[in-house]
Amino acid sequence: MSSETARVEAFSDGVFAIAITLLILDVHVPTSAPGHLGTALARQWPTYIAFLMSFSFIGIMWVNHHRLFNHIRGCDNRLLFLNLLLLLGVTVVPFPTALLAAHYAQADRTISAAVFNGTYFVIAIFFNVLWHHAVRGGLLDSETQESANSISRQYAVGPIAYLVCFLLSWISVPASLAVNIALAVFFAIPPRLQSFSRPVKMHGATK
Amino acid sequence: MSSETARVEAFSDGVFAIAITLLILDVHVPTSAPGHLGTALARQWPTYIAFLMSFSFIGIMWVNHHRLFNHIRGCDNRLLFLNLLLLLGVTVVPFPTALLAAHYAQADRTISAAVFNGTYFVIAIFFNVLWHHAVRGGLLDSETQESANSISRQYAVGPIAYLVCFLLSWISVPASLAVNIALAVFFAIPPRLQSFSRPVKMHGATK
Amino acid sequence: MSSETARVEAFSDGVFAIAITLLILDVHVPTSAPGHLGTALARQWPTYIAFLMSFSFIGIMWVNHHRLFNHIRGCDNRLLFLNLLLLLGVTVVPFPTALLAAHYAQADRTISAAVFNGTYFVIAIFFNVLWHHAVRGGLLDSETQESANSISRQYAVGPIAYLVCFLLSWISVPASLAVNIALAVFFAIPPRLQSFSRPVKMHGATK
Amino acid sequence: MSSETARVEAFSDGVFAIAITLLILDVHVPTSAPGHLGTALARQWPTYIAFLMSFSFIGIMWVNHHRLFNHIRGCDNRLLFLNLLLLLGVTVVPFPTALLAAHYAQADRTISAAVFNGTYFVIAIFFNVLWHHAVRGGLLDSETQESANSISRQYAVGPIAYLVCFLLSWISVPASLAVNIALAVFFAIPPRLQSFSRPVKMHGATK
Repeated sequence: MSSETARVEAFSDGVFAIAITLLILDVHVPTSAPGHLGTALARQWPTYIAFLMSFSFIGIMWVNHHRLFNHIRGCDNRLLFLNLLLLLGVTVVPFPTALLAAHYAQADRTISAAVFNGTYFVIAIFFNVLWHHAVRGGLLDSETQESANSISRQYAVGPIAYLVCFLLSWISVPASLAVNIALAVFFAIPPRLQSFSRPVKMHGATK
Repeated sequence: MSSETARVEAFSDGVFAIAITLLILDVHVPTSAPGHLGTALARQWPTYIAFLMSFSFIGIMWVNHHRLFNHIRGCDNRLLFLNLLLLLGVTVVPFPTALLAAHYAQADRTISAAVFNGTYFVIAIFFNVLWHHAVRGGLLDSETQESANSISRQYAVGPIAYLVCFLLSWISVPASLAVNIALAVFFAIPPRLQSFSRPVKMHGATK
Repeated sequence: MSSETARVEAFSDGVFAIAITLLILDVHVPTSAPGHLGTALARQWPTYIAFLMSFSFIGIMWVNHHRLFNHIRGCDNRLLFLNLLLLLGVTVVPFPTALLAAHYAQADRTISAAVFNGTYFVIAIFFNVLWHHAVRGGLLDSETQESANSISRQYAVGPIAYLVCFLLSWISVPASLAVNIALAVFFAIPPRLQSFSRPVKMHGATK
Repeated sequence: MSSETARVEAFSDGVFAIAITLLILDVHVPTSAPGHLGTALARQWPTYIAFLMSFSFIGIMWVNHHRLFNHIRGCDNRLLFLNLLLLLGVTVVPFPTALLAAHYAQADRTISAAVFNGTYFVIAIFFNVLWHHAVRGGLLDSETQESANSISRQYAVGPIAYLVCFLLSWISVPASLAVNIALAVFFAIPPRLQSFSRPVKMHGATK
């Protein structure tokens, strides 16, 4: 049964792997006067933060994709396209991140933060649309129903929370980014909030 | 038996995944005067359209490749090379798309639209050559004969329709692009025109 | 048994897929005066030839890698590193190709052709070193001994032929490139020179 | 059981494959006066060395990752994230290498060597954290305990040795790089120092 989604997962892994690896192309060796390389490197800090944030966020999205497809056993044509829609969101990530890094200390920080947070709002919707189709279309593994319900509850929070985050961009950019990072941590943790030190129970959730 | 095509599919998935992920490299953070980022972002709209079209078209081609290899079970040397020919078409896609985005509002829109539509005409031929070799070479899974016939009927439309689209470039660029997009939608839908809400039947076609 | 080489093949497929897909990044949308796009596109012909040659050569190398690993069943540490050496050659390919495309019509065509042909001489050696290690190290599938012998015979020709090709660069660049292309065709064809129309026998060679 | 780590390995293979293939993008065709291409190519030697070092180091890290996951059978949420942390280190590699290549012959060689060696110090810690979690979390294959112990012993050397290498940057850049290369060779060799000519024993360690 699981072989039905095997190629979807392989293709998605490829897209995630490339998206996460291309990020380093935005980190350039700075030009600097002789003896001032240290300063030039330090001055690039928004680029490093942008790189680390993009890497973490794409990584967390990969873990979530992995989690969803641990529950999805069937495959239909619509799933293929909803998965492509989600991957569209993933491949776009480097653009709003670079935008925010380039404008964080400047006049246009509000609009760049809005684009940044708005991207994650859209991705949260894509994740929910994919998951709800799998749930309603009967594509889930029937043996992991309880674990699937936990995912549904966790994911229901996403679009609303990211919408708040998006609207917050116009009130306070740092606050909106803090909420965005907090949400990333929230989605990094498995839905049943299992402690990391109990790998045996983990297996039940991630297998 | 299916292990015979496993590495061909894995390699192809890699190429599709990379081609679709590299597209974002053509979307750059615009340079703008302080306070004018919004306008600068909005002025880049042909780039976003080009990105979305390339992403959708490569995604649809991946779904079609997936569909074909759900029916192909055997593998010979010629299949390897016809598959490479198809992948050549896939990796080329970003070039005509960028060309069209750069020249859509200018004097050279006809030639750039012709190159754009012509590329898909050639890809349609490559898809047909690959599929016909699989059919005639006895490489198909004998259990899915009916479904394979549906694909053959759908694919026979491709080259002629894309040729019309190509020739239309010289009469009306917008009309030729509308036909191109309509054809993409046509090939996104499974050949037997099964409704999306019947996943059980879907399995028969996509497994 | 074959699972021992599975991850080596998956990693190699990834490298081949990326190398072959990155090639399009060297084909740029030309800058041109309004109404002269056609001429500007036509003037880029060495870039298109370079793209098609790189694509074909990497494709043929992938088919050969595929062929070798259809015979290799065991895996040791040295095989991992000899495979990495071969992949080094594969990832380098875009550089000498771009070099030749940039200098083909100029004073430095001899040295750029020598670098180009020399690269394939080195890759031919890497292919042979990998294959001979597999043969001598007892890593081959014992059931395909005859087919493996055909590969050994075909591969023995490689280094000498590419050395001739390399030396020919100083006598006649076009002749050296013709020999290089002829060698690519030679290695594209399966070693036992089976006709393309007999897929059943094919299976024996490619499975 | 091993299917639990299959997707982690596939994703990691993708990241390694892309990181190692993107390296060639830093090797550019030099601009040169007609007839001086040879000199221009020769003058780029630090770029070639940087390319070969990055390729070798990423290759060795891939072999080590492969070795670790030959022992890891279980998978929990923390393993996913520790693996992402390790992949972060892998994707970063091109940056310090390009930095060192750009500044090796200049005033800032000390700081660029420190960044270069420091990166590998951090990666060594990431490798150890991942491995220790697998050991302590009971995720290892119980049948290869002895071989796993050899890895633990070899890996314990890493952080300290790379710290020495990092500190050495301020005393002698060439010495620090020599130590770095020696450490790469040390980690390229399998932990039990098995001779290359005994593939049968190899299988036990790499399977």
